[in-house]
This record gives sequence, C-alpha cells and structure tokens, in this order.
Amino acid sequence: MVHTGSCIASLIGQGGSRKYHLTWRWLRYFKNDRDRRDLITCGAAAGVAAAFRAPVGGVLFALEEAASWWRSALLWRTFFTTAVVAIVLRGFIQLCSTGTCGLFGQGGLIMYDISAANVVYSTPDILAVILLGVIGGILGSLYNYLVDKVLRTYSIINERGAAVKILLVIMISLLTSICSYGLPWLATCIPCPADASTSCPNTDVSGNYKSFQCPPGHYNDLASLFLNTNDDAIRNLLSTNTVKEFHISSLFIFFVAVYCLGIITYGIAIPSGLFIPVILAGSCYGRLVGRLFEPISKLDVGLFSLLGAASFLGGTMRMTVSLCVILLELTNDLLMLPLVMLVLLISKTMGDMFNKGVYDQIVKLKGLPYMEAHPEPYMKHLIARDVVTGPLITFSGVEKVGNILHSLKNTGHNGFPVIDEPPFSDAPELCGLVLRSKLLVLLKGKAFSKDRVLAGNKVLRKISELDFAKAGSGKGLKLEDLDIQEEEWDMYVDLHPIANTSPYTVVETMSLAKAAVLFRELGLRHMCVVPKSQEVGL
Amino acid sequence: MVHTGSCIASLIGQGGSRKYHLTWRWLRYFKNDRDRRDLITCGAAAGVAAAFRAPVGGVLFALEEAASWWRSALLWRTFFTTAVVAIVLRGFIQLCSTGTCGLFGQGGLIMYDISAANVVYSTPDILAVILLGVIGGILGSLYNYLVDKVLRTYSIINERGAAVKILLVIMISLLTSICSYGLPWLATCIPCPADASTSCPNTDVSGNYKSFQCPPGHYNDLASLFLNTNDDAIRNLLSTNTVKEFHISSLFIFFVAVYCLGIITYGIAIPSGLFIPVILAGSCYGRLVGRLFEPISKLDVGLFSLLGAASFLGGTMRMTVSLCVILLELTNDLLMLPLVMLVLLISKTMGDMFNKGVYDQIVKLKGLPYMEAHPEPYMKHLIARDVVTGPLITFSGVEKVGNILHSLKNTGHNGFPVIDEPPFSDAPELCGLVLRSKLLVLLKGKAFSKDRVLAGNKVLRKISELDFAKAGSGKGLKLEDLDIQEEEWDMYVDLHPIANTSPYTVVETMSLAKAAVLFRELGLRHMCVVPKSQEVGL
Repeated sequence: MVHTGSCIASLIGQGGSRKYHLTWRWLRYFKNDRDRRDLITCGAAAGVAAAFRAPVGGVLFALEEAASWWRSALLWRTFFTTAVVAIVLRGFIQLCSTGTCGLFGQGGLIMYDISAANVVYSTPDILAVILLGVIGGILGSLYNYLVDKVLRTYSIINERGAAVKILLVIMISLLTSICSYGLPWLATCIPCPADASTSCPNTDVSGNYKSFQCPPGHYNDLASLFLNTNDDAIRNLLSTNTVKEFHISSLFIFFVAVYCLGIITYGIAIPSGLFIPVILAGSCYGRLVGRLFEPISKLDVGLFSLLGAASFLGGTMRMTVSLCVILLELTNDLLMLPLVMLVLLISKTMGDMFNKGVYDQIVKLKGLPYMEAHPEPYMKHLIARDVVTGPLITFSGVEKVGNILHSLKNTGHNGFPVIDEPPFSDAPELCGLVLRSKLLVLLKGKAFSKDRVLAGNKVLRKISELDFAKAGSGKGLKLEDLDIQEEEWDMYVDLHPIANTSPYTVVETMSLAKAAVLFRELGLRHMCVVPKSQEVGL
Repeated sequence: MVHTGSCIASLIGQGGSRKYHLTWRWLRYFKNDRDRRDLITCGAAAGVAAAFRAPVGGVLFALEEAASWWRSALLWRTFFTTAVVAIVLRGFIQLCSTGTCGLFGQGGLIMYDISAANVVYSTPDILAVILLGVIGGILGSLYNYLVDKVLRTYSIINERGAAVKILLVIMISLLTSICSYGLPWLATCIPCPADASTSCPNTDVSGNYKSFQCPPGHYNDLASLFLNTNDDAIRNLLSTNTVKEFHISSLFIFFVAVYCLGIITYGIAIPSGLFIPVILAGSCYGRLVGRLFEPISKLDVGLFSLLGAASFLGGTMRMTVSLCVILLELTNDLLMLPLVMLVLLISKTMGDMFNKGVYDQIVKLKGLPYMEAHPEPYMKHLIARDVVTGPLITFSGVEKVGNILHSLKNTGHNGFPVIDEPPFSDAPELCGLVLRSKLLVLLKGKAFSKDRVLAGNKVLRKISELDFAKAGSGKGLKLEDLDIQEEEWDMYVDLHPIANTSPYTVVETMSLAKAAVLFRELGLRHMCVVPKSQEVGL
C-alpha cells in the first residue's frame, strides 16, 4: 500500500503518464524536484493510513522513514492527505457495513481492538516486558540480517530471467502451502471453551476456532492460525481473555514457521510487504512469552502479544514514534502506551547494537543513492577539496555550441559551472551553475548567435518556460533528440539566462562532514566548492 | 508545565546554577548551542507529556511548535524523554490510586475518557461538524486577536512596577471570583436525573451536579461548571449520554464568561497557560452547538464538545498532528479521529485566513529573535549583499591586542571575520570567523607575543578547552572582566587557533530568500557573504 501510494503520487508528480495518454495540464505545476518529493512523501503517508487505518501513524511514518528532510509545510500537507484518506475510508467502511465488500471493512476503523482487556501490571510484569523487549530486539535484528542475506541470494537468482523468477515464486508458494496444511496435523484437538464469543468450531473462511480434522465440539489451535488470513491470525493472537486458547507447542511451531517463511518470502517477485509478517511473527512470539511467564505475570497474554509485535517492529524497522502511534491506532488501547514505548525503546536500542534498520539495508542493497542523516566519522578528517571530482568541465558565459555538445556527450555530469571571462567581466569569476537538462532544452530551442555577444532574455522568448519544467524520470530530452547541424557548431549560445546564479558554495577547507550536513539539510543536488577569498560581509 | 520542563532543561544545559551552588561537572558536555537547544526541546516535550498525560502528543508538540529545525536524532531523544515521563507518571498514578495525593491521579492515564460513547454519524452530522469547524476557527482567531491586544495593554501597565502588577492580578481574581459565585444565581435548579452515575446533588470539592442554592434532589447546572476545577468542568462538558444535563442558556453564559476571562487572564503576573482555557471554552462552545443541532444530529453532545475543543485549539494554536494526538490521548476515542482531523483542518484553514497562531504572536510581541520557516516574499527581490551590515570589522590573522579591545568595546558584533594578509599568505584571504566569547577567553588567557608571529597551538596549552565551552546565558565573560595593561596593548595575539576556518558562506548575489533558508535549516548564527570567485570543484 505504501508502494501504491507513492507510485500514484510519483505519477501525478510526473504530470501523468504520456504512454497511457493520462496527462493533465494542471499537473505541470508539480514539475520540479521539491514538489515531486513532497508528493511522494504524501503518497507514502496515504498508503500507510489506508493499509493500517492509522491516519496519524501514516503522517509519522512518512516523516520518520520516508522523508529525508523535513519542513513544517510538509507536515501540514501529509496531515491533509491522511485526513482525506481517513474520511474516505470511514465512508467506505460505512457503505460496506452490510458485508457486501468481502473482507473489507472488517473491524471498522480499528483493526485489532483489544481495548476490552484489563490493563493491570506491577513490577514482575515490567521485568518480564523488559526481557521480552531485549529478546525481541535481538530476534528483530537477526530477522534483518537474514532478510539481507536472502535478498542478496535472490537478486543473483532473479538475474537469470523471468522463468527462474516464476519458478522461485512457485517453490516458495508450495513450501508455504505445505507448511499451512501439513503442520496443523501436529496439533491435538482441544475442546471448545464454554464461553466462546464466536461459534466454535468454525468452518467459515475467516475467524477463530477452526475445526480442521477435529470432531465436533473440538478445534485445532494450529489450524486456527495457519488456515486464516494474516489479519485474522493476528486478531486471534491478540485476542484477550483467552489464555488457554493456544498451546505453547502450537505457538512455538507457528512462530518458527512464520519467522522463516517471512524471511524467504520477502524479495520474491510478488507484491509482499514487511509489516504484516513482522507483526504476525512478533505477536506470536509475544503470546509465547506471555504463556511462559503466566505463573508470575498478571498481564493478559493478548497484551503480551501486542508487546511482542512492538518489540519485533522496533527491532526490524527501528522507528519509534510512528510505530507507537500505528500500534495505538491498530489496537485502540491507550493504557498500554507506556509499556509499548518501553518495549520500543529497548528493542530499538538492542537492534541498533547489531545492525541497521531493514529499510536502510534494502536501500543499500538496491544501490539507491541515499544520503545518511549523519556524516560518517571518517568524513571529519577530510576536507571538501579532497572529494571534488576532477577534471572539472566549465563553460564560459557565452559558449560555443560545439563545446557544449562535446562535453554533454563525453561526461555524465549533471551540472556544469559557468565562468564569466573577459570581456564580460574583469577577472574570471563564477557566474552560476547550469543543469544538463536545461542545456538540452536550450540547444533544442536553437537560440544561437553568430557572434560572441550577450543575448539576454531574448533567448527565453523563443522557448516557453514550461519546457524547462522538470520532465518525468526517463522522459526528459536526451542528447540523441537534438538535431544540430555541423554549421551550427561554431555558433555561440548565451548561458546566462539559464544559469542558476547563486549556487550554494562551501570553502574548499570546510570539513567534509560539515559539507555533507549542508547538502543533506537543504536537499541539494549540486554544490560548488570555492577557494578561499576575501569576504565582504557577515 | 511546558515552561517548567523547558526551564529545567535549560538549567541542565547551562551546567546547573552557579548562584545556588547547583553545578555538576558532567553537565559541562552540554555546554554548546546545539545540545542546549535539543535539551530544551526535550524539556518542552516532557512538560506536555506530563501535563496532558500524552507522551506521543508531547513528542509531536515539541517537534511541531517548539523545534525550529528538526533532526531524526532529536525525534529519538524526545521520544526517549517522554517514554521515561510516561513510565514515571504511570508509577506515581498507581502509587496514588488510594487517593492520598489530592486530585493527582484522577482519571488515570486518560484524563477525559469518552470512549464509552457510541460514535455513529451520517451526512447531516458531518455538515454540522463542518459548520462547527468554520465558526470555531473564526472564534479561535478572534481569541488570538484579543489576546494580542490585551497583552499589549498589559505590557504597558506592567511596566509601571510591581505594585501595579499585583493590583492587576487582584482585580482579575476578584472579577473571576465574582463571575464564579455570581453567575450561578442566574441558573434555575434542575431535578436530578434518575440514572445519574455519580451522587446528585454533590457537595464535594470536585465532581458533577453541584447543589449550590438548590433544594435537595436538585442541582444547579451553571454552578457545576463554575464551582469546579477546570479539569472537572471539562470532564463534565465532555461527559456523554447526558444530553439534558446543561441548559442551553447556562452553556451560553458559561461560554461567554470563560472566553472573556481566558483572554484577560493570560498575561497577568501569574503562571497560567493557554491550553486549558482554550479547551474549556471550546468544549463549552461545542456542547452548545451540539444542543442547537440536537434535532437533526444523532451525534452525542459530549462528542460535539470534543470537536468544539478541537476547533478552538486548531483556531488558536494552528497545530495539526500534535493536537490530534493530544486530543486522542486525552479522550481515548479513536473512532472520533476522522472527525477531529476534519475539524482541525477546517479551523486551522479558517484561522490562517485572518491571523497567525497565538504562539507566533506572543513570540513577536516579546520581541524574541525568532526566524520564520518561510522567507518573506520581499526577500526574493533582495540579494544577500543588500543586507550585509557595514562597515565590517575584520581582524588579521595575528592581530594587535589593542585593536581587538577597541573593536570589542565599540561594536556589539558577535562574530568577526579573520583575514590572513601577507606575509602569512600570498593575497588577502578569508581565514575564518572568531566569536566574541572566544576572543574574550583568549584575551583573558593572555597568550600574547611581542612579535607578529604565528603562535600555533602553544596558545591553547595555556587555556583549558573547557574555558571555551559556552557559558550560561548572561554568565559568560564580559569585557569589564578583562584586566589588560596598557603595555600589553601593542602586543600581538594569534587568532588562528580559535578561528572557525570553515564558516558557511554564500555568494553575494544569492537571493536573500535562499540565504534565509540556508540560515534557518542549518541553525546557523553567523554566515559569511563572499564575492564571486572562480570555483575549483563541484
């Protein structure tokens, strides 16, 4: 859902898809880097809000995980997005309350309501919870480690072509099916409790107390977990006041199966997420711990289950505030908040001792250029001059068309500094920075002059402003699209109108760490490094 | 509470108070700008968390309102702080559950629990809620306007000395008392409802159904609101399934009284906040609207009351996410979340059409140097060169003591650029920036030399690093503390060791708006403006 939301937002940001003739004229205002980034953040927030029915959690998720940098306007925009999502969702749930929309709308706005449980805890419970948090954090970071290894293996397998990909998916599905149908045979039949709130045994698609192979009046606890949608399994695990519903052995089998299946399923060619498997494994683990601590703890096993889910989420995702709010919105149990916060703190701290969050790992694995919020320690010992890529290609203020074409062809640089030289200035000085995309548009417009003179804004009159608007990824002008004749190579073009005359600059002796922070906080794409010079003001 | 939290944090940030002999050696590590700012943010978060028993709301409040700039590390720190607050609070509430701590602990972790109400709403309810949001936003911004006017009047009155201040406080308290004891006489006695959950009539300190002047078996509804703690009044207003408890006329009288008293009380010389009066007035307004819409709306008046509080908060404070979470944590009613978000959206938008948030107004009124997140529109037409304060005082790398003293005496500048001149460099170039406070420490240390030579790190050996640590506000070295003899005036001091050799710089032609964003996002205090020069890298 997060993906879907972000993709829709990205599509809007690109002004619709030209391929499928879905373009809107008013969308052209979004054609720049900043608005596009904001839109994608809002899309991710809307995705989380819709998936977990947690609007505030969605805002926080987007801010904590998705947005690499943050503005108060962004907070307001994501809040607006998720508020709309919440209201639309509420409307649809009410429309579907008759049960005509399949499983949608089950549980209403609160998916796993456990607010009925009586929250009473004392010192031994808190000790149990701390232990749960520590082990949960370790298991979570182990999960990250294994997911990373499995993803690396899969990326090698998947490179061999589509057929191998499909084969892998089939194998994993077969394995999952075998587990789901085979393992419940290990469990023994349990007599139905007399005070069951739902029908027992149950032969519906979803619900608690599956009969499976058992005689009437009995149910198979393992089947109630395996042969269910993930949603229902989580709901069953979180159910309170049903201490004895699941055997310890059944919980253990289910936990091991879900933990392993979750790891090997992520990364195959199907749309699967991380959140639900982690919550499932975590809540099973929590219930297991709750059963083990039963003699000394007064806390309900359903609440232990919630805390287990929190510890797993904290151990893998390493988020805090947003997870806290998402769990609160999922379960509607405000009284558990102090314990959930405690568990998240502990499991995140434990996890951070071993490795990074699972999203950071995946970003690294995919080789996406993502800049860390904190500069690496080695950066403190380098200065900005050390990392400048040389040799630098610069243009003069009024440059030959041939030179520009040659540079564009032979380098992959995205930005080129423009240096004004005599006779346009007294001494060589930095005039600004031009971007590759803008150069291409300028060349396409063919605003060339025979002589080396300033053309001024005349150039821009030939080209409409909208052409300079940022095109969608992979949709921009390419060098091959240009059609420039040999005789035009010796003509001149004035770069002043399209140059950004005030790029952000740092002095060459600034420590790299400091420059990296500048780069990151401002959301820059290019930065100029200048030698020291006399300053004029403060 | 927010104030208290921030003050404690600020005290810790300054290394304790030397005046009261409360200093700790380990606190010296916090003696820098960044950590101090973070600490104060955490303090504000802890304050909100404790006041409203809303830990997550506290984190968001600190981020949305208090922190002018934001890092993911800060999120984690505030989360840690409020988690500790939540756990400590939970412990104390359990300790006080026997009722030995006065009113503390009433209501447990959820102060105004309305989760028992049945949340059902349809189209007419939503229309009513939208109207409520619009009017609430307008009333909220009117509140801001009046608070601003009243504060301006008070600041003139308060300047006349302590006696006038105390007189003002006495007058306001008298007025409040007259309202509280006089107005309830206007209300008629109402027979107690048969199904009252609490005793009726009630003669306790707090609680619902005050008897006041009424005969047994009757209660005075206006007295139940006036003659109560604010907390209990809010609880009474939010109480659900008690539609007829308060007369419309009583609600109207109480609303007008609370609205006006809230405005004139803020700003007098007593510790009072804005949150509780606004919630009180808002929930009364909401209940009033609920009563008026009774014929067409199925929503409980208690829930209308919550929405009224939300609309007032949105209209005055102009926060969104944090208010949403704080209200959620106060009332524990997740099902109301979509409506609360809707109301906040509407009331914030309405309020923003008229004036700024109340905190922004107060900051402006107090003349505190606070930088807006967004540059003003006029800044786009200025360039950085235009706002540089001249004439600039610079020092050369090795400067005469006399010159430095003279500059420190005659200017109020906080930072001085250091320019290296021949023979230390080929051409004049910017070496770095020295701060006033560091210059004073250096001069105090008297690391002078007779000749104009580089002293290197020898200087620093004379002065311990800790002396350079930032002192508490108003505690730093002052110019008068220096004791420099006439004959030392002609000696030289090497500024290289204490200069920051890589200040952030912008080119002089950068638009002021862009420079302001840089300044704000990085949390800078000084920025150098340099003329254009040839750059060496990208």
